[in-house]
This record gives sequence, C-alpha cells and structure tokens, in this order.
Amino acid sequence: MNPVFSELAPSVIRAMNARKRPGDIDLGLGEPTLKPPVEKFLEALKWVERNGCPYTANAGDPGLRRAIARRYNHPRLSEAENVCITVGSQEALFLAIKTLCTPGQDEVLIVEPAYPAYGKICQLENIAVHRVCLSPQTGFAPDAERVLAAVTPVTRLIILASPANPTGRVWKDDAQQALAEGLNRFGDRRPWVLIDEVYRELCYVDPRPQSFAHWYDRTLLAGSLSKSHALTGLRLGWLIAPRQVIEAASKAHQFLVTAASTFSQQVAMAIFSSPEPLDAARGHYRQQRQFLIQELERLRLSYIIPEGAFYALLALPPHAQKNSLDTAIGLLENQRVLTIPGSAFGAEDWLRISWVAPASELRTGLERLAAHLVSPSQLDTNLTPGTNLSPT
Amino acid sequence: MNPVFSELAPSVIRAMNARKRPGDIDLGLGEPTLKPPVEKFLEALKWVERNGCPYTANAGDPGLRRAIARRYNHPRLSEAENVCITVGSQEALFLAIKTLCTPGQDEVLIVEPAYPAYGKICQLENIAVHRVCLSPQTGFAPDAERVLAAVTPVTRLIILASPANPTGRVWKDDAQQALAEGLNRFGDRRPWVLIDEVYRELCYVDPRPQSFAHWYDRTLLAGSLSKSHALTGLRLGWLIAPRQVIEAASKAHQFLVTAASTFSQQVAMAIFSSPEPLDAARGHYRQQRQFLIQELERLRLSYIIPEGAFYALLALPPHAQKNSLDTAIGLLENQRVLTIPGSAFGAEDWLRISWVAPASELRTGLERLAAHLVSPSQLDTNLTPGTNLSPT
Repeated sequence: MNPVFSELAPSVIRAMNARKRPGDIDLGLGEPTLKPPVEKFLEALKWVERNGCPYTANAGDPGLRRAIARRYNHPRLSEAENVCITVGSQEALFLAIKTLCTPGQDEVLIVEPAYPAYGKICQLENIAVHRVCLSPQTGFAPDAERVLAAVTPVTRLIILASPANPTGRVWKDDAQQALAEGLNRFGDRRPWVLIDEVYRELCYVDPRPQSFAHWYDRTLLAGSLSKSHALTGLRLGWLIAPRQVIEAASKAHQFLVTAASTFSQQVAMAIFSSPEPLDAARGHYRQQRQFLIQELERLRLSYIIPEGAFYALLALPPHAQKNSLDTAIGLLENQRVLTIPGSAFGAEDWLRISWVAPASELRTGLERLAAHLVSPSQLDTNLTPGTNLSPT
Repeated sequence: MNPVFSELAPSVIRAMNARKRPGDIDLGLGEPTLKPPVEKFLEALKWVERNGCPYTANAGDPGLRRAIARRYNHPRLSEAENVCITVGSQEALFLAIKTLCTPGQDEVLIVEPAYPAYGKICQLENIAVHRVCLSPQTGFAPDAERVLAAVTPVTRLIILASPANPTGRVWKDDAQQALAEGLNRFGDRRPWVLIDEVYRELCYVDPRPQSFAHWYDRTLLAGSLSKSHALTGLRLGWLIAPRQVIEAASKAHQFLVTAASTFSQQVAMAIFSSPEPLDAARGHYRQQRQFLIQELERLRLSYIIPEGAFYALLALPPHAQKNSLDTAIGLLENQRVLTIPGSAFGAEDWLRISWVAPASELRTGLERLAAHLVSPSQLDTNLTPGTNLSPT
C-alpha cells in the first residue's frame, strides 16, 4: 500500500461522531438541518426527461460555469473559463493544491485554526506543510502580519478560509488589503492564495468584505452549495481561478472523476437562475446566531462571536486546557453532548460547537456543556465570560 | 504549476471530438443513445423529499454498498465492506492506482490496446508505467503468457479491461485461469490485478466468464452504471476490493471528493433494488451488434468481432497503416465520419468505431468509411475481409 495511507492520522471529527449514541445532543457536525430546495431537483429531473443524463464537458456545463463566474464576479475571474465545476468544494481544494504545488519542492502555508482536510490533502500528495496559527488572545482575528511573517522562499500556496471553520472569523477589507500588499512585495515569487469560501453565504458582517482578488492576482476561490442550501449530499462545488490554472486543474479533474454529476449541475443551474439564489438560508442562520449569543451570555461561557459560518469556538477553562479531546469525550460520556475538540483544528484550548441544531436542543446542549466545564474540579476560571473575545 | 500537467499529452479522443461539425456522423464517442431510466430518478427525488440531501458516509450508503457487493457476488468480495461508492468508474480507477502504488517505486503494467486514462492517471501520480500489447495477429485476444512475460520485480498492479475498450475482447475462463496461476507463482510478490468492468453488462459471450477473483485473491474491480444504463452523467461507480484496500481507498476518496452524490446513490439504489437491474440495455445492444456485423461483412471491412462493449476495431489497409490519426482526420474531413484513431489506445494500425448510433446512421457511416479506406490511393488491401480476425 502507498505509505501515505498508514501515515494519515484518523479524523478526530469522524472519531468523535462515531462515539455518538442515539439521544445524544449533536453540536458536532456541520450538517445543516434546513430542508433543501426540492423544487430545484424537480427542474433538474425535467431536464433529464428531455435530455437524458450524458456527461457534461470535463470542466462542467458551460452555462453553469458562466452563471457562477458572473454571480460572484471576482475581479479578472468573471468568465466561464475561470470556473471548474467540482465534486463539492472538497475536490476544488484538492485540485488547487495538486495543480499548483510540486511534491518535494513547494510548501503550503495553512492559516490555523483550520479545517483539517487542507493538511491531509497535502500529506496525501506528499506536499510539505507549514502552519501559522492566528492568536488566541485576539480570538483568532485575521492578521496579515502574522501570515506574512510565516511565508518562506518555498511557500507556493497559502490556504485560508473566510468565513473560517472553526473560528467563524471573517477576513475584512483592511486585513485582506494588508495581506495582499505584503504578498505583492514578494514580486514574481509571490505565492498563490486559496480562499475557502464554502461558508461564504453565511456571513454576518455588513457590508460583506470585497473579494481578495480585488487586491491580488494570484487568488483562487473554492465554493459550493453544500452549506448555504443544505445540499451537502449534492456534491456540487467550484474552483474559481485564472484561466491557465483552471485549464490545468480541469485535466486533473478529468482523470479523477471525469466531471461532476450532470443532475447536480442541473440543480445548481436552477438555483443560480433564481434572482436571489443564495439568500435562502441566511435569515434563518442570523436568527439562530442571535439565539446562540444570548444563551452563551446567559451561561457566562467564554466564546468567539461568530462573524460567519455556523460554528462557535468556546474557550476551555484553565483546568481543561491542553486537553480539548478529553474534555469533549468527557462531555459526551457524562453529559451526552457531542462537540469537536479544538485540537482537530490546531486550537487546543477550545471546543467547537456547531449551532445548526433546533433552538431547544441547542439550549439544552449549552446548559449541559456549561455545567460540565465548571463541575469537573469545581475550579473558578480566570476567563472573563462573553464578549471579551468579541472580534467586533 | 506542478510539472506533471505540462507533460500530460492532450487527449486524442477529445481532440477528435472537438473537430466534429454539425451534421457529421459520430462513430467516435461511447455515449449511449438509449434513454436513461427516469423513473429511478423519481424514486430518488421522493427520497430527497423525505430525507433532505445530506452526505452519505465517505465510502457510500451502506445499503448501496451491500446491494452492489451482493449483486456481483465476487468470491471473498461480497460484503458491503468490499465496496467503495465512487464518482464513476473513473474515480475507482484513480483510487485503485493511488492506493496500491508508491510513486517512484512501483510500476503499473497496462495491457494494451487500452483506455488511455490508465496511463495518464499514473503519469499524474508519478507512477511508472510498463505496457504490454496483445497481439494484433490474434485480434488482440487475451493472452496470459504475454502478460506474465511482461511482469517485472516492481510490477505492483496490472490493469486490464474485460470487455475491453477499444477491442471489445473478453477475458474468458481459460485465459483468466492461466493468468491467475502464473501470477500466483510470484508468491508474496504477486501483483494486484485491477479489472475495469465498466462494460461488464454489455457482454455477448455465453455463458459469461467467471470473476477473476475466483482464481486470484489480489483482485480489484471497477464498475459503474454509465454504460449499461445510459447514465454517464450520473457519475456513479464503485471499486470492489479486499476490505483493507477499500479502507485505504476510502481515505483518499474522502480527501478527493468527500463522497459520491447522495442523489446519484439513491438512483443507483432504485436500480439495484429491481429484480433484473442490469438487463435493461442488453437486448438493444445485441441487436445492434448483429446489424454491425452484417454491415461490416457486406462492406468487406476487416474487423475484430466485438465480444462485449459497444466498440469495434477496424483494421486499416496497408497504405493507411502506421497512420491512424491522419486516416481518422481524413475520414472526418472528407467523409464527415468521426472515428477514433487506434493510436490513442496503443493500436496504431486500427480505427475504433462505436456502434451506438441509430442503425441508419451507422450504415451510412460505415459505407463512407469503407469508401474512404479504399479510395485514397486506390490500393488493393492484402487483408482478408471479415471474420479472419474473429475471436470465436
């Protein structure tokens, strides 16, 4: 067997999820509980009745590529040729890394806390990883200087997410501009920047920050319908990038999967043809977020106010620090609440909760969580509860 | 850019297809013209109405994995744990190569003429390729001795297809048994064998040969619904292999695409729940094959009688040999018939036609093809027409 497989550590997220028993409160996974837009499936079905179910071109249906390019309208990246339709944003991440980086030569810089798959894709591809962690003291606020200081002569690609999983933080215009200006000083050696935008539509910052491509030409963006439309199972995403990158990425895409599902592409086409295709779930999440914050304040828990996505990081009290895995396991065993230890993302002193569960479940889960974090040793925490970690 | 991309030769099949003009007769691609089973899509839609569209487990819906394992019932490979649901058989091929082979160390042995993607996946993964070509004198008949003689100390994986694209040949029991016995003599060093079964349901050999796994434990099989059900756009395939291979392959699968489309898996579930799920198109193809043979005989063309799939290889007359690409281009330019040059598959003196077009188009295409092969220099060919290359 290819030795990379035995070296790949098992997924902490999946391991935690596997421990879940019926009746446990699930604040673990990021599976939206909203219903997906079934009427769009019906439109896709009518298309199949008329046209059958043939392959699309490798890079995707030209009309869908154009619709996505135009909708997001990133500077210099707004044509069909700038888009490859992928099997979820997961494949977009994979293609970006595989296309741009030469194994054994280039390095990927991952801005943490981060979705663990970035590093694991690199491991699978034998591409070296360097990690830079944002500061827990600022609630993991986006910090251009910190990222720039971590760039080395072999940094080929920087990966960051905005809104970020697990922190919920968003890169705003000033931070983005500072990062771009710093990177542009590297001249021809300037690395590529891959922005994971899978939570793009779940952004509670007003006005929405501009596209990083506004300041930086070596920008790639990965997105999908999974989170905004409760369509994780549709496996429909995209990579947006300069044309020559998309051409190379589409070759890899061809040999990996040929093309994304034609039916899924037709569902996406129906969604992108609506005048406000991406607003569907935003109101729901805004409301749910208000409820979350109110509960966290009531329970005097320390947390980072989410600016996007549907996660929140909760600070562990001192007695539980350096041990987020045991804390999460204890919480599940004793209080039957599933959370994900921050260690999975490079944030050891934190727990990630998702807040997509129905309000009553979320409240009960948080109450049990608060009880558990205080009770094990009855220690008082030094953390000021609540908004001390507010990013606003 | 990762240098493997500039080294990947453009696809001859796609280049030929790109030259097609409206009105040309298409004997090029392998896109079935049958209508897909729309009622199965309706069943899947009802499932989504009830359940939403969440991810399945990475390796696929357990019920579908079980249904596929049981349906094919390969010896020692008939449990859900022996199946990973993939994005078409393309991803199954990719996963098999990636999982079993260590770049810079192992070698893949490709039995040609073959689908060009096998070699290109290896190139993308920096895995060395060794090729062994079956004999054109026997009409590329499966030949265990020839394959065995090409095995080297670093052969880790042998890839063959049955029924094969482009030859239409099928590995029968005696050839399979001889190959397995020869490989078993390598003991612990015996390579893995990946059988591409994407045309499995389009097999005109009676009775169907047994599974290669009957004789050989290091067997993997790749399949899909694309060809049997006119569902190339569904992107639903599978890799069948020993449990530990599936476990590793599912890890790679997770980081490539997370999982196959839930909707596509539900369509597949509806198909595999039928009592005779895979018989749908077989009658149609048997009839079409009879028509093809009758026309090829009538036109006195030299060809290999297809035992499976929906392709046939036609022998070029001497004046056109060593030049299948120019012949195919000339045929398209002058006669407006699209075929694929054998050089794309490692069979330089041949043309591949697909015979899925409606009968009248197929007839016209073959007539023009026969005229073109004779006319360019008015040379008489030395080839005995027709059944001289019959494999039966």
